[in-house]
Amino acid sequence: MNYDDALDAALGKLHDEGRYRTFVDIARTNGQFPHAVWHHPSGTERPVTVWCGNDYLGMGQHPVVTDAMHGAIDAVGAGSGGTRNISGTTVYHKALEGELADWHGKEAALLFTSAYIANDATLSTLPKLFPGLIIYSDALNHASMIEGIRRNGGAKRIFRHNDLDHLRQLLEADDPAAPKLIAFESVYSMDGDFGPIGALCDLAEEFGALTYLDEVHAVGMYGPRGGGVAERDRLGHRIDIVNGTLGKAVGVHGGYIAASARMVDAVRSYAPGFIFTTSLPPAVAAGAAASVRFIKSARDLREAHQTQARVLKTRLRGLGLPIIDHGSHIVPLIVGDPKHTKMMSDMLLEDWGIYVQPINFPTVPRGTERLRFTPSPVHGPKEMDALVGALDSLWSRCALNRAELAG
Amino acid sequence: MNYDDALDAALGKLHDEGRYRTFVDIARTNGQFPHAVWHHPSGTERPVTVWCGNDYLGMGQHPVVTDAMHGAIDAVGAGSGGTRNISGTTVYHKALEGELADWHGKEAALLFTSAYIANDATLSTLPKLFPGLIIYSDALNHASMIEGIRRNGGAKRIFRHNDLDHLRQLLEADDPAAPKLIAFESVYSMDGDFGPIGALCDLAEEFGALTYLDEVHAVGMYGPRGGGVAERDRLGHRIDIVNGTLGKAVGVHGGYIAASARMVDAVRSYAPGFIFTTSLPPAVAAGAAASVRFIKSARDLREAHQTQARVLKTRLRGLGLPIIDHGSHIVPLIVGDPKHTKMMSDMLLEDWGIYVQPINFPTVPRGTERLRFTPSPVHGPKEMDALVGALDSLWSRCALNRAELAG
Ligand SMILES: Cc1ncc(COP(=O)(O)O)c(C=O)c1O
Ligand SMILES: Cc1ncc(COP(=O)(O)O)c(C=O)c1O
Repeated sequence: MNYDDALDAALGKLHDEGRYRTFVDIARTNGQFPHAVWHHPSGTERPVTVWCGNDYLGMGQHPVVTDAMHGAIDAVGAGSGGTRNISGTTVYHKALEGELADWHGKEAALLFTSAYIANDATLSTLPKLFPGLIIYSDALNHASMIEGIRRNGGAKRIFRHNDLDHLRQLLEADDPAAPKLIAFESVYSMDGDFGPIGALCDLAEEFGALTYLDEVHAVGMYGPRGGGVAERDRLGHRIDIVNGTLGKAVGVHGGYIAASARMVDAVRSYAPGFIFTTSLPPAVAAGAAASVRFIKSARDLREAHQTQARVLKTRLRGLGLPIIDHGSHIVPLIVGDPKHTKMMSDMLLEDWGIYVQPINFPTVPRGTERLRFTPSPVHGPKEMDALVGALDSLWSRCALNRAELAG
Repeated sequence: MNYDDALDAALGKLHDEGRYRTFVDIARTNGQFPHAVWHHPSGTERPVTVWCGNDYLGMGQHPVVTDAMHGAIDAVGAGSGGTRNISGTTVYHKALEGELADWHGKEAALLFTSAYIANDATLSTLPKLFPGLIIYSDALNHASMIEGIRRNGGAKRIFRHNDLDHLRQLLEADDPAAPKLIAFESVYSMDGDFGPIGALCDLAEEFGALTYLDEVHAVGMYGPRGGGVAERDRLGHRIDIVNGTLGKAVGVHGGYIAASARMVDAVRSYAPGFIFTTSLPPAVAAGAAASVRFIKSARDLREAHQTQARVLKTRLRGLGLPIIDHGSHIVPLIVGDPKHTKMMSDMLLEDWGIYVQPINFPTVPRGTERLRFTPSPVHGPKEMDALVGALDSLWSRCALNRAELAG
């Protein structure tokens, strides 16, 4: 067995398909988001504007957040020094869990080191708590949910994306007495479309299933207090377990679930991905709690965010560019080929100082490779003009079809 | 299906077995480790000394670490704002990966959000890179390795803990042409015993297997530059993949693997647990890099650490207490019953202000429940006297057998 050859083959495949990923080394400038310094592979530094980040509201540079982090470091040091059970629980962790439970109107919340592990650990633990559990999972659910559902080989059914009829068929085909869970997202992050939360809850009720909602790309941004799309649509009480991240609109790091007190207690007690890992640094918990507290009343920020998305979409549509628009804050521009997408991204970065990462398989299906823009309240009119101008001339230069390409 | 009943049953089982976990809310005081403030459930605050943390060297309060974190927050804000591929790679992440590769004498290193996910994601991805891979796993490997090995249902063989003969039998029974990997730890954290790294590497060589070594409880603490037990024993070059954490001796948060450039590149490119999650906050990466850089030349800290462990073991042995001693820095005191262990831990905390968490199943096998002490360079003679005195009188009070209980 030649292990190096096997690795070369695996890597060669990515190169051949034009989807080998190189990371762009970018450091945002605190206080000047979305401006950043690009550390060019040649060793030089260049100013760029970030258009693809998921710090959707710019909270990562908000003094309320950074001050809370500084304060916690000064008070208790760098790391937590242990797992949650073994010396790694602090007032900061508890306070954050309190903020999160309140945010979602749930009895309790449980912190994880990321929303990835929150999804993975929770979904893989539920079959232990409900023996025989069948999980019904939207076909476009995030990798972390898929990993959690697959692990341990529990029963699963995949329903076509947002397809209620298909889901109903699958539910009808199973034993009515079996424990069931329907897992879906509120905003699908690569197309920016919404899950039909209300109708999914209706089906769950009809078939006696639990509901599991990933609000990772919605928390902070939808609902009167930023609690997510379920809050906006007054459906929070019909969701049994909600999953969210602290690394996107909240601007810091970490993830969580919120649910009933006994659900949280059981996951806390049985999930290896929660139990056997160092808890988040107190400073991260402190920053996230401060951010969530602030966001709850930051309606203006949410409105500015939606306005920015609408303006960008209107302007790109005006140029005839093939954007996808489902009314969310995400602006995907379909290119449809991994090599073209990479080339356009490279040109935007090199020639215009605009950083938008190419998105390719496996993050999106092959043939739908795209540039995905994430306008935010920190992107001003100047940045917007520069982006629109650059895309206009780049699109002409590349002689790409415009509206014809639109999905 | 009554979901609440199922949850109550799952939780009731833990209560019945005396292994329901309650987290102690503890905030260490920066600059005064191991002293901390215990936030008592009654709402009062009490001073305590932490004796069970995994910030083994006290780096979590070292100014070189906290200054680096403050500096990064000031420079680039709170979170990274994206996955490594989508705007979440910064100079801080790259610099840290450079430090880590150098630490282990490897071509490259790859950061994960924790060592848990580094183990899980890497071990579950290797079978994709080496189709037909058989993983040979030590029976006492950490939960995160077990989860990674189990996931995807790849072929696995469990060898009895540190049993080279058993491992040989298993290797001999398999197809010589099949790709193979032997996974083990250098310091097993609950007993504090060492893996026979050299002999395991010999077997790997004989059978053409890769080696995977978890040095989570050794990095920072063993070897001339703190690179771990493999460094101490000059075996680093025989390890294909080493796993380490930034949340224990390094004092911050996060995890990593170090390996050949092409191995790291392949895991980077194929592991969902690496790809689909927000990268660590730049400040966490900055603090960890500063810590590792410092630790590389902090021989005095490593010596003080070992001395503290030796002194504590000598003194507890002098009292006839049943400690386990394998010559590492970990001091387990076996109680052997979950309820007694919890009671002793509660009494130490309430009556003496000494915090040492009970360790029970599933972290250790049933019947070996224990108190696990982690002396460090920040535990002075006064703290040591207080601990030894408390254990002496507690042990008498509880009329527990002393040396007879020793394993
Ligand atoms: C042996 C071992 N490996 C891995 C881990 C996970 O490390 P981390 O806390 O960085 O997730 C731990 C404990 O937390 C451990 O004890
Ligand atoms: C839908 C969805 N769920 C979960 C996650 C994981 O969140 P985190 O970055 O906190 O791990 C992501 C992206 O990172 C996501 O897009």
